Amino acid sequence: MTKKFINNCDEIVEDMIEGFCKAHSETIFKAENSNLVIYKHRNKSKVGVIIGNGSGHEPACIGFVGSNMLDCNAYGGLFASPGPYTILDAIKVADNGQGVCVLISNHAGDVLNSKMAIDMAEDDGYVAKGVVLYDDVASASKYEDPTERRGTAGTLFAYKMVGSYANEGHSLEKVCDFAAKVRDNTRTISVASVPGTSPITFKPMFDIAQDEFEIGMGVHGEAAAKTMKVCTSKELAKQMSDMLLIDKPYVAGDEISVLVNGMGQTTYMELCIFYNDVESYLRENGIKIHKPLIGSFITSQEMGGIALSFCKLDEEMKTMWGKPTDAVGFPSL
Amino acid sequence: MTKKFINNCDEIVEDMIEGFCKAHSETIFKAENSNLVIYKHRNKSKVGVIIGNGSGHEPACIGFVGSNMLDCNAYGGLFASPGPYTILDAIKVADNGQGVCVLISNHAGDVLNSKMAIDMAEDDGYVAKGVVLYDDVASASKYEDPTERRGTAGTLFAYKMVGSYANEGHSLEKVCDFAAKVRDNTRTISVASVPGTSPITFKPMFDIAQDEFEIGMGVHGEAAAKTMKVCTSKELAKQMSDMLLIDKPYVAGDEISVLVNGMGQTTYMELCIFYNDVESYLRENGIKIHKPLIGSFITSQEMGGIALSFCKLDEEMKTMWGKPTDAVGFPSL
Repeated sequence: MTKKFINNCDEIVEDMIEGFCKAHSETIFKAENSNLVIYKHRNKSKVGVIIGNGSGHEPACIGFVGSNMLDCNAYGGLFASPGPYTILDAIKVADNGQGVCVLISNHAGDVLNSKMAIDMAEDDGYVAKGVVLYDDVASASKYEDPTERRGTAGTLFAYKMVGSYANEGHSLEKVCDFAAKVRDNTRTISVASVPGTSPITFKPMFDIAQDEFEIGMGVHGEAAAKTMKVCTSKELAKQMSDMLLIDKPYVAGDEISVLVNGMGQTTYMELCIFYNDVESYLRENGIKIHKPLIGSFITSQEMGGIALSFCKLDEEMKTMWGKPTDAVGFPSL
Repeated sequence: MTKKFINNCDEIVEDMIEGFCKAHSETIFKAENSNLVIYKHRNKSKVGVIIGNGSGHEPACIGFVGSNMLDCNAYGGLFASPGPYTILDAIKVADNGQGVCVLISNHAGDVLNSKMAIDMAEDDGYVAKGVVLYDDVASASKYEDPTERRGTAGTLFAYKMVGSYANEGHSLEKVCDFAAKVRDNTRTISVASVPGTSPITFKPMFDIAQDEFEIGMGVHGEAAAKTMKVCTSKELAKQMSDMLLIDKPYVAGDEISVLVNGMGQTTYMELCIFYNDVESYLRENGIKIHKPLIGSFITSQEMGGIALSFCKLDEEMKTMWGKPTDAVGFPSL
């Protein structure tokens, strides 16, 4: 049994949100009658930006509520989408009369519930538009159906850039187009070394052989595309980078941001070593890196592993990526 | 065997620093011929603030180099103090003619090497003064010899506040007095649930029974003061808070900051739940919390556990705690 610092399995999300909101009461608060974390100092003359997502991936997405990021996060139970009424509440909170961009990380429940919420919002006289984010190259072929790809760590690029872009005063249509542009320039591949443990069942979320890595697992421990024998960071960085370079493709001369996202228990030391190997390999390939991000931002409990994401940037995206934010889960860039 | 994302055991620190400095080249750089991470945009008209410490605790302390924090970090090998010549190099880099405050986390090697470096600096015509930081209530009695207490997660309060205070233009003597004041108002107690694994030996750093927590272990897995049966977060929060409340003592009416520091693999979800329980208990005891901090800042590889730190604040300390920083390992407050 993995020992976790919790009280009651049924109240982990409620207790977490209470602690999180108490700790950051200067910038955020919890809605009284709905499962929403809301930014306190919202710019009320812009398109709203929200997401609904399951809990268990913290700091995602409660930690991304803040200036130049999300206005509001509708959170669900552990690894479960919030219901459509919760997402509807988020839309109502974030609408300043200019509409709301609903970011949706591509998982069946999130898509279904977000779309229902958008329909209900329209019935109530609100204007909301959804943009489905998908980035995981392992979960579906880009030729057969790229929209079947899962939303994984690369969605972080959209949370930051779209939040900043909306803050510039653009229309809902432009904000949604920009979100799609960020998505279409983003690719992610993940590796797992150790499974995380569910704080409800206290069981490992999946199994991995002692001498293997899993390549391409989802953020809830969804089956991996393939396994490989344990290898060095350098070899892994090359293999994972190649999967992304070929897929987009990213080519010599491109300027990209790189996210090296720890899945939970992987140390900052390892993330820096892995980043170092990715950087060297990209440099050899003539690709320039702009403001990379290293840390554990979108996690799967205490899973060991790394999600590697690339996002090709133009000047506008670079500006949006670099805007400061007071969201507690996002560092100085 | 724990699977780690590394290349060669002998080069983990070098590879990590290379990756870290490449990723954050806008704000920091590595010294050419010494093991130093240096802030690029140093205020050159103030007392310098540095620390020398072993690697393996990241983001500490490389992640705390930045505005209103450290000017320079001298890093050592895994869990090993940097040598005196490296710390001497850090003093020379950070000295703007007004002297350097050398923060020292209380461990034998760090103290010895920092003091040697300060002596050598004086021989070379520099002015440096050391302040030994200790906060762990479990490692020695406050009545017998409080200076035998280890430096643990609570030292983070000093890195931030002393860096900000020095930036206000105070003299070396005042900066060191302020560092001692922060230390004397800080207490920490830690709990471990799962040992971390050395990336050199690939062995667990210590053993913990399946149904027990260890209370009072050090940041390198030093022997714990006692064990206890696994319990709820609420019960643990009460017991750990009481150890700190009694020791200082912190009393009704005090205003304190609280750090809930994850030791490596403990999830952000658990840290928030534990913070929630600490907050409730302190409120019951009439203690007010100002700008708490939740996250994994000073780690022991992927150890499971939490370090709980309290720091009693006056108005000046509150101002220094809240100053913004561009140090990548420190979040928005």
